Amino acid sequence: MRYRATVAYDGTAYIGYQRQADGQTVQGELEKALSKLNKSRPVTVYGSGRTDSGVHAHGQEISFDLIDWKHGIPTMVRALNATLPNDIAVANITIAAENFHPRFAARRRSYRYRIYNAPLRSPHLFRYTWHIARELDLDAMNTAAVALVGEHDFETFGRAPTPGGHTRRRLFRASWSREEEIVAFDIQGNAFLYRMVRNLVGSLVQVGLGNWSPDEIQKRLAQKNSDFCAAPAPPQGLSLIRVEFEE
Amino acid sequence: MRYRATVAYDGTAYIGYQRQADGQTVQGELEKALSKLNKSRPVTVYGSGRTDSGVHAHGQEISFDLIDWKHGIPTMVRALNATLPNDIAVANITIAAENFHPRFAARRRSYRYRIYNAPLRSPHLFRYTWHIARELDLDAMNTAAVALVGEHDFETFGRAPTPGGHTRRRLFRASWSREEEIVAFDIQGNAFLYRMVRNLVGSLVQVGLGNWSPDEIQKRLAQKNSDFCAAPAPPQGLSLIRVEFEE
Repeated sequence: MRYRATVAYDGTAYIGYQRQADGQTVQGELEKALSKLNKSRPVTVYGSGRTDSGVHAHGQEISFDLIDWKHGIPTMVRALNATLPNDIAVANITIAAENFHPRFAARRRSYRYRIYNAPLRSPHLFRYTWHIARELDLDAMNTAAVALVGEHDFETFGRAPTPGGHTRRRLFRASWSREEEIVAFDIQGNAFLYRMVRNLVGSLVQVGLGNWSPDEIQKRLAQKNSDFCAAPAPPQGLSLIRVEFEE
Repeated sequence: MRYRATVAYDGTAYIGYQRQADGQTVQGELEKALSKLNKSRPVTVYGSGRTDSGVHAHGQEISFDLIDWKHGIPTMVRALNATLPNDIAVANITIAAENFHPRFAARRRSYRYRIYNAPLRSPHLFRYTWHIARELDLDAMNTAAVALVGEHDFETFGRAPTPGGHTRRRLFRASWSREEEIVAFDIQGNAFLYRMVRNLVGSLVQVGLGNWSPDEIQKRLAQKNSDFCAAPAPPQGLSLIRVEFEE
């Protein structure tokens, strides 16, 4: 039987979502916990997005198969969360179609990047924000961001996840907002290139600091060359907020 | 010259505020950073409250003496924060009276304890909240808490910081509020016994879960005996919010 679930995690302690030969990963912890519910047989978890080392999620979507679970879904949720470490939690488990795959079925992915924009850093937010002391010009950043909405070749701002893969992506939203010291970037797209959100944030911050004019973003996008990208924003500010599937 | 400053910290990585022979402490980190501003000579930091291992602060108040600092206070703030680890930050440095001591001069201390009250735990808040899955009855908890306001002998709920010290304390405020899944306890007093806030929270949660009636708190307070206290709430939910001094 195939199941689908929503996973939230604090990525601080992990070398990323995806299982690797060495090091703690979110996928690895999920598979370890699920195998205990699967008569100790191995379980493979598929996710809708591979978040980098240190990146968080509020709504990663996963699928997995269990051989024979007789105790109902509320018990599955409780058993999984009792086994998982404190920094990973599973919710909204449902039965999925036999051929459901959260990466291929995903139609929209929403990320949020948070900056702590205040003269002094916050010891309570350093795990979840990028600290920038100088005040950012949000109007300029929004002027630059709006030019990114729509379908474009984003080669300047990221690498295709598979070598030789195409680099066109469609953005539905890219906008900045401020609530007191927190400056947040909300971006929604059909899919994202490797490092794309952090690269866009790094470049848009150059606009916000006055180092680049807002139209630099569009000019650099048109170059289709990663030499024109600023350094990526650090990972801890980023969270995968929500994944939407086709109906 | 004596200085006064406000310190915020995430206590997760520390065995408490107070310097000890072994292990990382907030006081130890502050003294290390300050000695670099003091021609490498040792500096002793005095705080207004000794927070336990894992307890946080938004507004701990400290004092320290520097021999001869010629670069002004904004530079002192920048130099200190550049040296301190990410989970400690110093703000509001001012010159203090020669005999100022933040523990003896403090007249009111405010703490906040946060509970994450939702069926599933939050991987983003586990460092800063106590997770309680069953819904808490805030009306009952507030009925019980209000009986604590005023001057009482709190021997049931804490130990004097010095052996044989008296256990009377005056509370100005003790109240619960809810904002979505976060249930917060705001408590303000002239001073607190060792573990007093966590012991009160642990006992008031027994009321909120329906295990104790609200008038149990007052009855147990009258016993003046720590056998009548519930287990303390875990440290990570607690933060020292503010310290006020006499004018």
